[in-house]
Amino acid sequence: MTDEEYMKLALREAQRAYDEGEVPVGAIVVLNKRLIARGYNQVEKLNDPTAHAEMIALTSAFNFLGSKYLPEATVYVTVEPCVMCAGAMYWSKIGRIVWGAHDEKNGHRHITAPNNPFHPKTLIHTGVLAEDCASLMKEFFRSKR
Amino acid sequence: MTDEEYMKLALREAQRAYDEGEVPVGAIVVLNKRLIARGYNQVEKLNDPTAHAEMIALTSAFNFLGSKYLPEATVYVTVEPCVMCAGAMYWSKIGRIVWGAHDEKNGHRHITAPNNPFHPKTLIHTGVLAEDCASLMKEFFRSKR
Repeated sequence: MTDEEYMKLALREAQRAYDEGEVPVGAIVVLNKRLIARGYNQVEKLNDPTAHAEMIALTSAFNFLGSKYLPEATVYVTVEPCVMCAGAMYWSKIGRIVWGAHDEKNGHRHITAPNNPFHPKTLIHTGVLAEDCASLMKEFFRSKR
Repeated sequence: MTDEEYMKLALREAQRAYDEGEVPVGAIVVLNKRLIARGYNQVEKLNDPTAHAEMIALTSAFNFLGSKYLPEATVYVTVEPCVMCAGAMYWSKIGRIVWGAHDEKNGHRHITAPNNPFHPKTLIHTGVLAEDCASLMKEFFRSKR
């Protein structure tokens, strides 16, 4: 499968968040071409502002593998990770991070740049299905106004 | 109770981590002079590198209050929060953060400075019982060598 195809699976998670009235962000973790974990934003449902898609997907992956490091895995997330999620990815030593849309407001880069908050070995790839990922967010916030 | 007295409670949590072979960091959350949540590092036990003292204490506080914001609360943590935990504190809109020892290696500041990763209304106070907090960490890493 291609990055676009995996991102479509992350978008499916984002759609689940959208359908539940949550900010529509979704994430999956892939290892050896297998989907091993998924997550979508559950901040409202859990009354927990740390229940982001990436946190849930990462913790699910640690549990699934019984390992606290994911150096061979890739996380796909529909929107640029926030500072918290970037920090969680650092600790996971994840091999590769792919995100869709940039997030100028809550993305990590406006706080961490020019520093790299990730593990030095982690590869970063951005912009995959960025328009689809961003338009789900825009639609959500428009519907809330 | 004073900041020092609350930090002693956070240090007690850190000692629990130490006793369980975890990097000794502890945290508590105080609201209206009441201790409403506590946490200690459980990364090894849970095989989850995101299971930091602060994450556990914050999530416990959200659950206890049924609220995802803590604008009137104070978190006491024995060691400077990492990037992930700083981001979690941002989302919590916590009123005040007090930490003991600085952490030049894994503290958030070497990634986020000169930016402020916290909510603009959050007050920060550092250095409370810093030597006690730092010496527990030093002792731990010395014992692991």
